[in-house]
Formats: sequence, C-alpha cells, structure tokens
Amino acid sequence: MLKNPAGNFLPGFSFYIRDMKQQPTILVVNDDGITAPGIKVLMEEMSHLGRVVVVAPEGPQSGMGHAITIGKPLRIDQVDLYNGIEMYKSSGTPVDCVKLAVNKIFKGRKPDLCVSGINHGLNYSINVLYSGTMSAAVEGAIEGIPSIGFSYDDFDHDADFSTTRPYVRAIAQQVLANGLPKGTLLNVNFPKTQKIKGIKICRQANAKWAEEFDERTDPYKRSYYWLTGVFKLEDRGEDTDVWALQKEYASVVPVQFDMTAHHAIPELNSWSFDIPK
Amino acid sequence: MLKNPAGNFLPGFSFYIRDMKQQPTILVVNDDGITAPGIKVLMEEMSHLGRVVVVAPEGPQSGMGHAITIGKPLRIDQVDLYNGIEMYKSSGTPVDCVKLAVNKIFKGRKPDLCVSGINHGLNYSINVLYSGTMSAAVEGAIEGIPSIGFSYDDFDHDADFSTTRPYVRAIAQQVLANGLPKGTLLNVNFPKTQKIKGIKICRQANAKWAEEFDERTDPYKRSYYWLTGVFKLEDRGEDTDVWALQKEYASVVPVQFDMTAHHAIPELNSWSFDIPK
Repeated sequence: MLKNPAGNFLPGFSFYIRDMKQQPTILVVNDDGITAPGIKVLMEEMSHLGRVVVVAPEGPQSGMGHAITIGKPLRIDQVDLYNGIEMYKSSGTPVDCVKLAVNKIFKGRKPDLCVSGINHGLNYSINVLYSGTMSAAVEGAIEGIPSIGFSYDDFDHDADFSTTRPYVRAIAQQVLANGLPKGTLLNVNFPKTQKIKGIKICRQANAKWAEEFDERTDPYKRSYYWLTGVFKLEDRGEDTDVWALQKEYASVVPVQFDMTAHHAIPELNSWSFDIPK
Repeated sequence: MLKNPAGNFLPGFSFYIRDMKQQPTILVVNDDGITAPGIKVLMEEMSHLGRVVVVAPEGPQSGMGHAITIGKPLRIDQVDLYNGIEMYKSSGTPVDCVKLAVNKIFKGRKPDLCVSGINHGLNYSINVLYSGTMSAAVEGAIEGIPSIGFSYDDFDHDADFSTTRPYVRAIAQQVLANGLPKGTLLNVNFPKTQKIKGIKICRQANAKWAEEFDERTDPYKRSYYWLTGVFKLEDRGEDTDVWALQKEYASVVPVQFDMTAHHAIPELNSWSFDIPK
C-alpha cells in the first residue's frame, strides 16, 4: 500500500501521488453500465489518486445481486470513452466484471483499490443484498482488494453528484492509506441534499421490501407483473444507515461476506435430529 | 407453528400431522428449475410434513445470487407436473419466485416453512453468495419465514438423493418445531457418500474461487470466455462446512442477512476524514 511520508493521503497531495512511480491502481466498476453518469464521477475522482482501469457492464445491471454468468459465454472489449482512461465493457454482470478484471486485465497483479458506482439510487439497509453495485464491491473484497461501493439518492440521468465528490475522494484516500479489516468492505451512501453534514459509521438498518406486483395484461390476454415495492423500516436505531441518511449524513457501513450467524450456533447444537437408522 | 402433543415432530408422525386441519404450509423453491430432480425430492419429503406449494423458475437459474428482475416483467403460471401438488413456474429468478409466492400465491398469509433445492452441486463456504438456491432461502428469511437451503454434492441429472432424504425431513421437522433465531436461516449441504455420518453445525469456511476463464474464438474471429474456476480453501478450521463435508457429515450453517461487519465499526470510527469545506 502506497503512503506519503506522513503515512496518510491528504487532500491536495494527489499530484504528488500521481507523480510517484508506484502510484496505486484503482479498479472502477458499476452496475448501471459503462455509460452511466455515476461511473464518470468515480473515474474523475479516482484519477486524482492513481491509475484508473474501468471494467463495467455494457448495459444496466441493477438488481443483479451477486449473480455470475455460468450458462453462457462472456465478452469483454476495450472501449475509448474518456481520453486517457483504460476502459473495458463486458456482457457480464457486475460480479463477472470484477472477476474478468482481476483475471484478464490485471492478470494476478491485484489493484490497490476497487470502487463501485456511483450507483443511481441508494443501497442502504437490506438493499446491500440486491445491489449489483454492492455485489461488485463484495467480489472485490473476496479477491482481497480493499473495496468500496458508493450510491447516491438520485435516479435521474442528470443527477448532480457535486456534493458527493469530496466525500468519495476522502473515503477512498483513507482506504488507500489504512486498508480495511480482513474480510470487510465499505457500503457508502450519500443523501440528496445541498450540504452533506458529514460521515456516520453505521450498521445496516433492519428492513425489508413489501412487494407490490403491478399486474397487467399483454395483447394476447396473458397476465404479466412488474416488480415494485415499498421499503418497510423495522428499526428505530440511531446507529443505522437509514437514520444517518435521514439526518443528511453520508452513511458508511462496514460489510462482511462471512454470512455465518455465529450467535445461532449454540442453539442449533442443542437440537436433536432424529435420523432413522 | 404446529406441534404434535410431545412438542416435536417425530418420524412416523407425518400421517398425524397431515390429518390435522392446521397442517403447516411449505413453500418449495429452487434454482435448477421446476423440472430438476432435486426439487422433486423436496416436494416428496415435504409432503409428509404439510401442504406443499411449489414456485420455481421455468429453467435453470444457477449462479443468479440475489438477483431480482426489475428491467422486464415477470410471468407466473400454474403447472400440473406431479399429481396433487400445487405448482407454479415463473420466468423470474429464484428470489423473484419467493417474492411472487408470498405476494401472489399466499397473499400475505405466510407459509410456515420455505425450503430451497435440493441443489445439484454444493453451496458450502463462499458459494452461499453466488447460489440462487441459497438466495431464495435468504429471501424467505427476509420475509420472516423459517427457511432452509439444501444442496447435494452431485451435479448429475440422475443423482441418487436417497441418502439425503431422512436428513432433509429431520431438519425440516426441527425447524417447524423450533423455528429459527430471528434474522437467520439454514444452509444445509450433503456429501456424496454411501452413509452420511450425521449432522455438524458449522461456520462458513473462509475460501474463494480462483477464476480461470476459458478463452475461445467464435466463427467471426472474436474472443469469448467461459467462466470456470478452482476452489481455494483458506481455512484449516475443524468447525467449517468444508471440513464437515470432507468428513462425510451433513453441514448445517446458520446464515444471517445482516451483512454489517460490526467488529469493524470501532476502527472506522477512529479514522479522520478530511473533507474540504
């Protein structure tokens, strides 16, 4: 991990970092597709911190979760969308993009940081499971790369990300400087507000989606459904990502990919299973 | 939750349970598709424990993780594949199937149990994230339904599931009798062996896939890639699912969908983020 003489990256030192031979390499991915405005913000901000390589889906892949492509082949092609940035588009999912980047682009020499997003729309609470943006960051962490997913509360194609930029850069700088605890990554969400009040380190709020399928009839008289839903918060804690965003803070949740419910092991060990001989 | 007078379900009592008016309702899902042999095993075993309703993808959806369908509409149609069992096939992902079941089939009156599988192939360790089988069970748990994912170490269409049957039924009986700790579900994997030695309650082994993309050239001279990989175990613990399966035990891992790395919160709170005013 690269550090400046003081041991930390500091705002204003980016020129110094970029001039060093050992500048960090930063993988940029997303789930909204390679032409989404949000990924451009990450590319621009990360260019101040190191060498940027983009590997992103060729089209939108929202809601893909941790899907990987195993029933059909994958394509990956270099594209030249922004001057001087190495970019690849893939037919695969966000997680496929990370796997392809590590294996076919970086060829075993891992990037120093993986950033995913900036997602158009929040990925707080239970959305961490459904989000392709977050799953790409999770995959980066599984690969041993310090990883961050960024999301912003604005679905608009013309969303103004300017309030998020200093936070994106500061958080990435901290992760480059300090690394992250083994087996963890960060889920960062930004509120839509004129002035973000600061950063809150949070836990994932307990919540779920109550589905409401929008039923329609096609021209052949067959029913079909659009998945919609209402977010149901079941958590009044003042230490959650939902709470922080409501208070106009950027929420930072450390995420792990060990899904074991360790606290439940003793209870299960007390069960007796009656298996016929 | 239904219990017999002794407070537990016991093998041989299934006729008793089925004759009761308040028999449990059991949702059966999978990711291999509604015609896969593994789901038939679950349907048969669960029929001894309650009223079975099947909602499964119309075709294979392996590796779909927690993907949901938001860019296109969903179909769900009743089918009659096995005499007397209520069955629906859907165009959606495994997670979509659970959402559709809860919302369109059960209409708010939740089933007493959700079982997913039996998957053709193991879902131990990190595979919990990629597996559509497990993600369907996770979605069941998010919906507040006691949920279990089952997987077996045999990809063969003619796989012989007979050794798994008594375990499937015994584990489902215990969950019907005891419920599961809030916010948790079970990930159950069966080894391919003549005699399963018993059940071990485990944690998810620390491991990853090292990808090896199989590169080929299409008739138009363009490259494409098949995702393949080698499983890299990075865990010598004797309390993991990998260890249990190697020793020919069925592994049972309690899984949670709170992905917060709670232990990392203090360290992140010690960071100072330098945001320009």
